[in-house]
Amino acid sequence: MKKIGIVGGIGWPSTLEYYKLICEESLSYHKEKQYVGPCPMPEISIESLNMNFIFSNRGSHEPVSWTIWNQYFHNALLQLESSGCEVLLMASVTPHARLKDIVGGLTAPLLSVYTAVGDECKKMGMNNLLVLGTSQTMGSPAFVSEMKSIGVVAMYPSTADLKNKIAEVISLLYENKSEGMEKVINKIVRVCITPEDLKHTAVCLACTELPLAFSQYSSEPHFSINGIHYINSTVVHARAAFMACIE
Amino acid sequence: MKKIGIVGGIGWPSTLEYYKLICEESLSYHKEKQYVGPCPMPEISIESLNMNFIFSNRGSHEPVSWTIWNQYFHNALLQLESSGCEVLLMASVTPHARLKDIVGGLTAPLLSVYTAVGDECKKMGMNNLLVLGTSQTMGSPAFVSEMKSIGVVAMYPSTADLKNKIAEVISLLYENKSEGMEKVINKIVRVCITPEDLKHTAVCLACTELPLAFSQYSSEPHFSINGIHYINSTVVHARAAFMACIE
Repeated sequence: MKKIGIVGGIGWPSTLEYYKLICEESLSYHKEKQYVGPCPMPEISIESLNMNFIFSNRGSHEPVSWTIWNQYFHNALLQLESSGCEVLLMASVTPHARLKDIVGGLTAPLLSVYTAVGDECKKMGMNNLLVLGTSQTMGSPAFVSEMKSIGVVAMYPSTADLKNKIAEVISLLYENKSEGMEKVINKIVRVCITPEDLKHTAVCLACTELPLAFSQYSSEPHFSINGIHYINSTVVHARAAFMACIE
Repeated sequence: MKKIGIVGGIGWPSTLEYYKLICEESLSYHKEKQYVGPCPMPEISIESLNMNFIFSNRGSHEPVSWTIWNQYFHNALLQLESSGCEVLLMASVTPHARLKDIVGGLTAPLLSVYTAVGDECKKMGMNNLLVLGTSQTMGSPAFVSEMKSIGVVAMYPSTADLKNKIAEVISLLYENKSEGMEKVINKIVRVCITPEDLKHTAVCLACTELPLAFSQYSSEPHFSINGIHYINSTVVHARAAFMACIE
């Protein structure tokens, strides 16, 4: 198995989730095979960053204002590469918005959440994607433009009000307040997508918190509720990392 | 904060626990302080090893038979050091039995579970320690000799039968079967220690599974039940790592 490198700490509960999912994937992949001793696991290197430093060094509209931020992520990826990692990933959707500014000069391939989610859409036969995530994710054109290059038409909730409602749901889920959140999300989705379009549109839960609203499906890569087809970006991304490591 | 380096994957649930405990320590340490943005977290690098490779490369009574095993751990520690880690630890008690063979040539200090548990004993005013852990831990003189150098008299359950009982409890807890295990452990402790000696003897739960039998105290560094004073080595070790990183 190839060694997996994870940029983590953005935030730490998300890193826990990715690491656990990859290890569980290895358990189920190796279940049938007869090994002597404990289940084989891929070697994994994690560089867990300081979220406060990341927050304090966010830039503005001037690209140069992001220099320290970009460098912090770039150095973590370089570190993972020099630790022998052959599959790299970031255990969070949000920093993917600046992917192009941090991957320059890497030799090992970075498996982006865009590729993982795009591939899942195609497997599901979906050509359209509604992306629900943090304000930063929904405020950046990155998800939409990256999906376009994969052949998937992506969109965010269309109004500031709907985006704020999703941000509020994420805050509540972060504080473990999940009661009633499934209904709230379903309702927002039905405002964004017509009943006709629901048939060929997937809804990406593009942060670690949103799947907590659907606790019975929290480890599923995708699931359907009353005609809404959800994709859990964390599960899909972590599984893709494991699949890449056994290729 | 100093960067923390963790050798993990031995096994992966234990790594999850250490990482979570260190992050939670940072949350509670920074709670009172007024920071802008998310709570500051120490940077953490984790080298998660393949448990199956470790198992397959265990040696015998011949020291030279452990060469590959020793090298595997040593390389992981060197990697953490070259990633800039200034506090090193292994997220498992079991490999500590071979600590002396794997730390040679390191510049950064390795915070051993022995130091962490020994310091906790002294804080509690205990000079004696009963160590309950995996068969490998209880089959090695390491814990006892290392405690001696700290000034604590350590011992394992005295008979093979008692050691086997502890190993059985660990297997059941590993499979999430915790019902009734608290009573079983308490009973074994009372066979090992006289009521008089219980007053000045701590009992070290020296693996990640054993504290699962005491779910109401699982995040406490130490706790008492019916006159038995338990130490949770995982919590004590992870806390000591956080304290070392803010020193």
